[in-house]
Amino acid sequence: MQPNDPTLRSFVDVDPASDFPIQNLPYGVFSTSGTSPRVGVAIGDLVLDLAAIEAEGLLDLGGAKNVFAQPSINAFMALGPKVWSSTRARISTLLRHDHAELRDNSALRQHALLPQKDVALHLPLVVAGFADFYSSKEHATNVGVMFRGKDNALQPNWLHMPIGYNGRASTVVVSGTKVPRPRGQLKPPNVDEPSFGPCKRLDFELELGVVIGQAAPMGGMLTEAQAEESIFGFTLLNDWSARDIQQWEYVPLGPFLGKSFATSISPWIVTREALEPFRVKGPVQDPAPLAYLQQKHAQNYDVQLAVDLKTETMQKPAGITRTNFKYMYWSSVQQLVHHASSGCAMNVGDLLGSGTISGPDKSERGSMLELSWGGAEPLDLGNGVQRSFLDDGDSLTMRGWCQGDGYRIGFGEVEGTILPSV
Amino acid sequence: MQPNDPTLRSFVDVDPASDFPIQNLPYGVFSTSGTSPRVGVAIGDLVLDLAAIEAEGLLDLGGAKNVFAQPSINAFMALGPKVWSSTRARISTLLRHDHAELRDNSALRQHALLPQKDVALHLPLVVAGFADFYSSKEHATNVGVMFRGKDNALQPNWLHMPIGYNGRASTVVVSGTKVPRPRGQLKPPNVDEPSFGPCKRLDFELELGVVIGQAAPMGGMLTEAQAEESIFGFTLLNDWSARDIQQWEYVPLGPFLGKSFATSISPWIVTREALEPFRVKGPVQDPAPLAYLQQKHAQNYDVQLAVDLKTETMQKPAGITRTNFKYMYWSSVQQLVHHASSGCAMNVGDLLGSGTISGPDKSERGSMLELSWGGAEPLDLGNGVQRSFLDDGDSLTMRGWCQGDGYRIGFGEVEGTILPSV
Repeated sequence: MQPNDPTLRSFVDVDPASDFPIQNLPYGVFSTSGTSPRVGVAIGDLVLDLAAIEAEGLLDLGGAKNVFAQPSINAFMALGPKVWSSTRARISTLLRHDHAELRDNSALRQHALLPQKDVALHLPLVVAGFADFYSSKEHATNVGVMFRGKDNALQPNWLHMPIGYNGRASTVVVSGTKVPRPRGQLKPPNVDEPSFGPCKRLDFELELGVVIGQAAPMGGMLTEAQAEESIFGFTLLNDWSARDIQQWEYVPLGPFLGKSFATSISPWIVTREALEPFRVKGPVQDPAPLAYLQQKHAQNYDVQLAVDLKTETMQKPAGITRTNFKYMYWSSVQQLVHHASSGCAMNVGDLLGSGTISGPDKSERGSMLELSWGGAEPLDLGNGVQRSFLDDGDSLTMRGWCQGDGYRIGFGEVEGTILPSV
Repeated sequence: MQPNDPTLRSFVDVDPASDFPIQNLPYGVFSTSGTSPRVGVAIGDLVLDLAAIEAEGLLDLGGAKNVFAQPSINAFMALGPKVWSSTRARISTLLRHDHAELRDNSALRQHALLPQKDVALHLPLVVAGFADFYSSKEHATNVGVMFRGKDNALQPNWLHMPIGYNGRASTVVVSGTKVPRPRGQLKPPNVDEPSFGPCKRLDFELELGVVIGQAAPMGGMLTEAQAEESIFGFTLLNDWSARDIQQWEYVPLGPFLGKSFATSISPWIVTREALEPFRVKGPVQDPAPLAYLQQKHAQNYDVQLAVDLKTETMQKPAGITRTNFKYMYWSSVQQLVHHASSGCAMNVGDLLGSGTISGPDKSERGSMLELSWGGAEPLDLGNGVQRSFLDDGDSLTMRGWCQGDGYRIGFGEVEGTILPSV
């Protein structure tokens, strides 16, 4: 049976509402008290310690050694798509209810299957480079209207290529990392001179991150198939944004410090293979893209997304957005093909942000800027709590999942709480 | 005597016109046939193999081991400014004409002092992140006039902060690396639809690269003194630019593929300490910068710069630019202070591009775009050869040096030859 077979069951008990059934098997990096970070996969409420499984000799990694006893998944990714596939199939087999090897080895099970609640989760990859795109037509239109007016909302280039820019890799952090409020130059339109101070329009952006697992040399190009094969997996990504810093600095060279202070990702990388059953066509692209960007295959994914916000005074979080990754105008494959098209070298561990994922409905907008329409329509969170942007102490959580028949391929969550400026 | 003392002499013969007298001692990474890349310093026409000197026990690196038997200077930089300073002083002593330790140890000299012509020079650092600035007022004005017209040439934010953007670290390459002509979407103003193909307006940008040797944590800020202490050294940097790709893609998120295909740096990192005698005040900043960007000390450097171009048909190169690093409006220290001011983490090995270095005179412009005024005034290279932008086969060389009394602190050169698109 294939690892994606919906009838597969594990000997590990998995709740049907769990993000991590045997059909998922996302990779992360974890540690327990007093031990070194190493690679594992999530299964139900447990983590399978792949360093322990590798040490036991249960994995065939094509001769590579110590692949999983490492503080990142980069060494595993560098082994390439065939090894990703065979390893996933092997882990699936080891976890099946009707396979005895691990199931009946209680010493190994004790040692290698750990409750998630007892482990710390770390940044799962060494981020080689980070590029952030801008590929939801709804988001680009909303922001364009607010920043540049209705007539210049969608720039002339937007329908011809996935617009992107280089982000800052040094501040990509894992879910749960506190986010200090950034500082910067602020010059609201009604003031003559800029001043320096804490950001007053702090925002999130709901994105998916694409993790690149294959290098591509300087000077080359990637086909659709090569780009697809280079994608190891996906993560939730919060592209924290300081709207006031961004607005004053971004002309003409683009966002810099308005984005560089933090980017949070979820700890589990969901593999491209696990998402295969949820592949869907994206929106019709009109005008037709230039030849190098054309796709023969459906390259979007039906991933449901939800954002919750909890302020310090609230008992429980309020849902503020429900949307879907399938709305994206430009696919991750097109983004990667475009990124490499100039001759730009790609590295194992490169991270591409999808761009804010907004849908056609008002309730499907992926940022405070859009939800509160630049502050003109503050969000009502109940009990008299309102927000246009994020306050100190606010905790923002993104979740994502693909709904199968009786199971879900989940991404877990990415959470961040705002600290006052230091 | 201090390592910068102009009267110092080495037992190694150094031509007065050499870039690498005992007062310089820049760091690089080299290998000889069949050996591993390791760290060395340039002295005259030789390289001092620091891995060999360290193995001999001649360096006190505060307990750190195998610092120089590595393919980058990052491990050395991570030891911090006190060790940079003491190591430079110690190397200076070891190379002095009146110090016997190395001079009279002919076996070690034989082994550790190698002719530069016999070694291969490699990229000297692992580039953690790359940010490129835009800090010459003359360059920003020239480009602004061409791209946006005279009225919008210098954006309102330009005089208030060092404008910058994140570049692509994966394609930072060492001098001598061939540069394939990039491809991309092109849409000249007189054409309705974009097409995809080789860049037709390929350019260089004359910059200095600043190498950051000290990390700074997420959420913090740097003072002028901390930023200065974080700077390990400087390199020549050619920020190759595809003007046609850039012009079509850059609104609103800035340059991306127009810059991502290659950035070349010189192989020797000249230390901040070696440049100390050439420190000068920069231009008067009016309006006065906000408090966090104010400088108590002169933070510019008097570095003379020259660019030569040689086409395939030319016997010898033609000089096309002579300018000076001292013209920069925003200093490297201000750039770094600004970069970290949002709370952005800085890493050992971060590289900051100064931005194109143009001077007030026409002959001092640091790019083809400015020299040929967007192609309107092609450069005459002699013998009927003209250029507005770079052709396949063209070789571009940048050189830089500080002129002392009877010696020069030189940067060597950064060269790149354009290959046809693959």
